[in-house]
Amino acid sequence: MDEPRILDAINAPSDLKVLTNEELAILAQEIRQEIVATTSVTGGHVASSLGAVDIIVALESLLDMPRDRVVFDVGHQAYAHKLLTGRREAFKTLRTYGGISGFTKPSESIYDVHPSGHASDSLSIATGLAKARQLKGTNEKVVALIGDASLAGGMAFEALNYMGNEQLPLVIILNDNEMSISRNVGALMKHLGNIRANSHYREAREGLQAAMEQGGPAARGLLGLGKNMKESLKQMVIPHTMIYEALGIVCTTPVDGHNIAELREMLSLVLEMDGPALVHVVTRKGEGYEPARRDPERFHGVGPYDIATGQSTKPPAAYPTYTEVFGRALAAEAADDADVVAITAAMTGGTGLKHYAAQFPDRFVDVGIAEEQAVGMAAGLASGGKKPVVALYSTFMQRAIDQMIVDCALPSANVVFALDRAGLVGDDGPTHHGVFDLVYMRMVPGMRVMAPSDEAELVHALHTALALEGPVSLRYPRGTGEGAALPDEPQRLEVGKARIVREGGDVALLAFGRMVGQARAAAEVLAAEGIEARVVDMRWVKPLDEEAIAAAAATPLVVTIEEGVIAGGAGEGVLEVLARQNATVPTLTLGIPDQFVPQGPVNRLFADLGLDAAGIAAAVRTALAG
Amino acid sequence: MDEPRILDAINAPSDLKVLTNEELAILAQEIRQEIVATTSVTGGHVASSLGAVDIIVALESLLDMPRDRVVFDVGHQAYAHKLLTGRREAFKTLRTYGGISGFTKPSESIYDVHPSGHASDSLSIATGLAKARQLKGTNEKVVALIGDASLAGGMAFEALNYMGNEQLPLVIILNDNEMSISRNVGALMKHLGNIRANSHYREAREGLQAAMEQGGPAARGLLGLGKNMKESLKQMVIPHTMIYEALGIVCTTPVDGHNIAELREMLSLVLEMDGPALVHVVTRKGEGYEPARRDPERFHGVGPYDIATGQSTKPPAAYPTYTEVFGRALAAEAADDADVVAITAAMTGGTGLKHYAAQFPDRFVDVGIAEEQAVGMAAGLASGGKKPVVALYSTFMQRAIDQMIVDCALPSANVVFALDRAGLVGDDGPTHHGVFDLVYMRMVPGMRVMAPSDEAELVHALHTALALEGPVSLRYPRGTGEGAALPDEPQRLEVGKARIVREGGDVALLAFGRMVGQARAAAEVLAAEGIEARVVDMRWVKPLDEEAIAAAAATPLVVTIEEGVIAGGAGEGVLEVLARQNATVPTLTLGIPDQFVPQGPVNRLFADLGLDAAGIAAAVRTALAG
Repeated sequence: MDEPRILDAINAPSDLKVLTNEELAILAQEIRQEIVATTSVTGGHVASSLGAVDIIVALESLLDMPRDRVVFDVGHQAYAHKLLTGRREAFKTLRTYGGISGFTKPSESIYDVHPSGHASDSLSIATGLAKARQLKGTNEKVVALIGDASLAGGMAFEALNYMGNEQLPLVIILNDNEMSISRNVGALMKHLGNIRANSHYREAREGLQAAMEQGGPAARGLLGLGKNMKESLKQMVIPHTMIYEALGIVCTTPVDGHNIAELREMLSLVLEMDGPALVHVVTRKGEGYEPARRDPERFHGVGPYDIATGQSTKPPAAYPTYTEVFGRALAAEAADDADVVAITAAMTGGTGLKHYAAQFPDRFVDVGIAEEQAVGMAAGLASGGKKPVVALYSTFMQRAIDQMIVDCALPSANVVFALDRAGLVGDDGPTHHGVFDLVYMRMVPGMRVMAPSDEAELVHALHTALALEGPVSLRYPRGTGEGAALPDEPQRLEVGKARIVREGGDVALLAFGRMVGQARAAAEVLAAEGIEARVVDMRWVKPLDEEAIAAAAATPLVVTIEEGVIAGGAGEGVLEVLARQNATVPTLTLGIPDQFVPQGPVNRLFADLGLDAAGIAAAVRTALAG
Repeated sequence: MDEPRILDAINAPSDLKVLTNEELAILAQEIRQEIVATTSVTGGHVASSLGAVDIIVALESLLDMPRDRVVFDVGHQAYAHKLLTGRREAFKTLRTYGGISGFTKPSESIYDVHPSGHASDSLSIATGLAKARQLKGTNEKVVALIGDASLAGGMAFEALNYMGNEQLPLVIILNDNEMSISRNVGALMKHLGNIRANSHYREAREGLQAAMEQGGPAARGLLGLGKNMKESLKQMVIPHTMIYEALGIVCTTPVDGHNIAELREMLSLVLEMDGPALVHVVTRKGEGYEPARRDPERFHGVGPYDIATGQSTKPPAAYPTYTEVFGRALAAEAADDADVVAITAAMTGGTGLKHYAAQFPDRFVDVGIAEEQAVGMAAGLASGGKKPVVALYSTFMQRAIDQMIVDCALPSANVVFALDRAGLVGDDGPTHHGVFDLVYMRMVPGMRVMAPSDEAELVHALHTALALEGPVSLRYPRGTGEGAALPDEPQRLEVGKARIVREGGDVALLAFGRMVGQARAAAEVLAAEGIEARVVDMRWVKPLDEEAIAAAAATPLVVTIEEGVIAGGAGEGVLEVLARQNATVPTLTLGIPDQFVPQGPVNRLFADLGLDAAGIAAAVRTALAG
C-alpha cells in the first residue's frame, strides 16, 4: 500500500474518464483491496461487493454522474460505487454508528439515487426515473444494477412488464453470479444457467445464416418466412433465448463481468439504445479475495475477519443466537409432527434453517427472494392440511402483509409467522430494522402475536404457535440470546397470559420481547433509589393480558416498553385496554418515536432512544415525580 | 324458463359426469342466463363471470371434487362454480347482507379453496396445495384458474418461478380474454396477443419439419444440431413461444374458451401430466350477453341493470362519488402543476382517472395489476423531480406497504397516496373493505395521514398533499359523497389542525373521515336528550391535533370514531396523546373490533358495528351514565 494508488486520485466518477482499460483494471484491484481492508474491520457484505467491482468501474467510467442515474438493487453491492464517489475516507466508517451506510443512501451522497436495502425494487425506481426524464425532455441515462436473485422477485417482473410495454429507454445490468444455479432456487435461475451454458453457440450463428442462404429450397424457404425469421434463427442457435426478449426488452449475450474492456464495449453500445435493454453480465461472488471466493455464502454478510485466513476475528458469543435456537426448536417440533413445513425466502442460513433443511429436505421450502410466494404458498399448504412455518426477517415480511391478511388470516389458516431480526438489527440500519411488525400483525383480525423475551420463551412460543388453530406470529431479535437455559420440553403457553418476572408496587413495567431484559435492569436501577418496580413479561401482544393490565393499573404508574414503533404498537393496545377498564392511572408508552432509526450497535441505539435501563429508569423517575 | 333446465339437476360437479358435450354446452347457456338474471338484481361481476362459464363447466365435468382442488384467482369469475356446487338457490342472494359472497369463500362451501379477492394469489395457493399433496402422497388434482391481467402481477411470477423449478404437478388455466391487448397494460399482454396471432402457424409446423428433413445440406445440418432442435423448430414456426416454457412450464397452444368439446379434450390431456402445465384458453368477456360483450369494462363490476338493455336500474345518485370528485380535483391540480403524474394499477375507472387520463395522457400511468410497481415507480418519479399521486384502493395498497415504507417514506419522497374505497365498501365484503390503511400509514415515520370528511374536504386534502414535501396519504370512501358544495378554489389545510364542526361541552366526539357525518348525526340524537356533544373533524390522523385533543379532555368524555380497525388505529393514537398530556378523562374508542366485517350495505354494517348515529349515541349515553 506504499505505492501511489490510482484510487487515491479518484474523487468523482468523472476522474475515471482519463483512465485506460488497463488502468481501470488496476483501479478495480485497488478497490477490492480497500473493500477487504475495511470490511475485515467493520464487517459487511463482501462477496457481492467484490463481484460487482468491475461492473461499477466500467459503468461509471462511461457515465456523466450524478446527472446520469444509477440505481443499485440491494445497495450492499455498491461499495465500489461509494469508493468512486467521494467517500474514500468515509468508507472506513462503513456500517458504524454515525458512519456511512452499508447501502446506497440519498442523504449521504448526491450519487446515491435511493435507499436500497430490500431486493427487487431497482427496476421500478428506474422506470420512474426514465418516465420523469421523458416528461422533462432531458436525456440523462438511467441504469439499474440488479442481481439474478433479485430479478426473481415479483416486483422486478412487474417493472419489466411495464418497461417492455412502454419501451422506456433504460439499461438493466444483470449481475449474474454463476453459483446460483447450484442453489436451486427458482426456474429463472435455471434459465439463466442455460443461457450461460449455451452462449458459445452464438459464435456459430452468422456462419450458419450464411450457410442457409446458400442452402436448398427448404432452408431458403425458412429464410423467407418473414420478418420474424432473424429472431427465430437466433432462438434456434441459442435455444434458451432470454425470456425478457418476449417482453420487448433487448437482451445481450453473456458478458464476462470481470473483463473491464469487454464490459465497457458492451455498455457503450447499450447505453446508446432508445428502448429497454438488459446486459447479461456473468460475475463471480467474492472475485479477487480467495476466502470469499471459496465461501461466498459466509462472506455474503460477515463480521470482522482476518484478511489472511478469512476467519472471523469476533470472539465467539457466549450464548447461541435467537436464530440458532429457533432453527433447533423447529427441527425438534418437525421431528414430533410430520405436518410441519418450513418456508423461507432466500434466507436459509439467516433464519437458522440450515440444520432443519438438511434433516427434513422434503419439508423445507426456499422460494427465493419472493416473500409473497412464501406466504401465499403457506396458505395453500395449510389448506392442504399442513402446518407451515414462514420464517422471514421482520423487515421483509413487509413485502407480504396483504397475503398474510387475505390469504392466511381471513380463512383463519394454520400458518405460523416466525419473524427473525425483529426490533433493531444494528449495522444494517433503517432499511433492515424490524420495527413495524407488532403493528401490522396486531391490526389483523384473529392474529395472535407473541414476543418472546428470551430464547427459552422462544422455544415455548414456537411450540404454542404450532399447537394453536389459526394464524399466529412470533418475533424475536437478531443476535445472541439472553443466556436463558433452554427447556428440555417446550411448554404450551396460555393464550393471552403474561408472567410477572419481578414484583413491585411503585410502578408496573409491562415489557414486550427483548425489552423485558431492559425492564429488569431498569428495575434494579430504580430499586437502588427505593422505587420497587413490577416487571411483567407480557408474552402476548395480542391478545393482551387484561388482568395483568388491570393489576398494573393499581400501581401509581403503568409503563409499556416495546422494541418497535409507538404508533399503533403494543403500548397503544395497552392504553386501549386501560381505557376500556376506565383506569385513570398515569401511563408512559416507551418505544420508537416517529423516526427512522439509524445504524449502530443495538445497545447504543437503545440508549439513544431511552430504551436502555438508564433511559427507562429516568423516564419512570420523571413520571413519578411529575 | 318454463322448460326443465339441466342446471336444476346439478347439485354437485359429479352430476356433470353423465352429460355429453352438447348437454354441457346447453348447461353453460343456462348458467349464463342465471348469472344475468341474478346480477341484474343484485349487481356483480358480470363480464368476467360470463367469460369463464365454459371453462368452469368443462373443467368441473372432468374433476373429482371437492377432492380435486380448484383455486380461482379473483373469485368473481367463479359464479358458474357457485351454481355447480350446490348453491343454485343461494346464488340469488349473491353479494347481499347475509347472502353468499361474490368471491369464493371456504366457509361458504367445501368446494371453495380460498377467499379469493386480491389478484394474482391463486398460483401461490396452488403451489402450496401441490406441495401438500406431494408430502401426503395423495393424487388429487390441483388446478388454478387465472386471468391474463392477474398473471402480470408479481406474485404470480414468483409462483411460476417456484413451480417451474420444482416441477410441481399442477395445472394453470390461463383465461385470456382477447381485449387486453388493446388496453395496452403490459408487455406480457402484448406477448399473449402475439401468441394468439401466431397460433395458426402451428398447423404448418409438421409439414415444415418434413420439408426440412428432405431439404438440402443446410436444412439437414440444422436438424442435426442436437436435442434442442425440436424445441427450436417450434420456436421458429411459432416465433412467440410462451415465455413460461423457459421457466419449465409446459404451455399449450391457444384453445377456444367457448368450445366445451375442445376445452375438455385439452384439459383431459393436461390433467394427466406430472409437471406444471399452462392451458392457454382464449375467451371473450361477457360472452353470451350482448350488453356485456359490448361494454365489458362497465360490466366488470356493475350494479342492478335492465336485462333487455343493459342499462342501470339504480336511480342516479344525488351527489357525485368521492371517486369522481377526486378525479376532477386531480385533473385541476395537474392543469396547474406540470409535475403532477397520476399512477393507477389497473383501476383507471375505479379510481376516477378516466377524465384525467384523457386530458393528460403523458402524465398518466397504468401499471396493470402491479401495486408494487406503482409505488416503486412513484418513488423513482419523485426522485426525478415529479409529484406522483398513486391512486389505489385501500385494500390493494396492502400489496405495496414495504415499498411505501422503504422506497417512499425512508427517503422522504414527494409521493401522494390517494386511497379510494377506504373503510367499508359494501357488497364486496371482507376481501375488499379498506379497514387497515390508517394503521399501516400512521406507523410509518414521517408519513402525514389525512382522512377528509366529505368531498369538499377531499379537494382540500389533495391540494394540501401536493403542496407538502415528503410522503402524504389521504383516504376516502367508496360511493356517493355527502353532498358538500365543492369549493371554487382548493384550500391548503394547516398540517395537524382539526376543525370543530359542532360545539358542545358534555362530550367530545373526535371523528375521522366519513365518521364525522355519523358523529354529527349522533350529536343530534344526543342533543334531543339534553347532551351537548362537540363534534371535531380531526382531518389529520397524523400528526394528530394535540390542542384539539387537550380541549376535548376538558369535557367529561372523549370519544374517537374511525372507519377502520381499532387495533393500531387513530383512536389509539389519540389515547397515546392523552396519556402524554396526563389526561385522566374517560374515553371511548369506536371503530372496527377484531373481526373481518362481512358484506352488506354500508349503513347496515355501520349499525351492526355501532358506528351509526344510534350506536354512537348509545355508547356515549352508557359511558356518561357509567
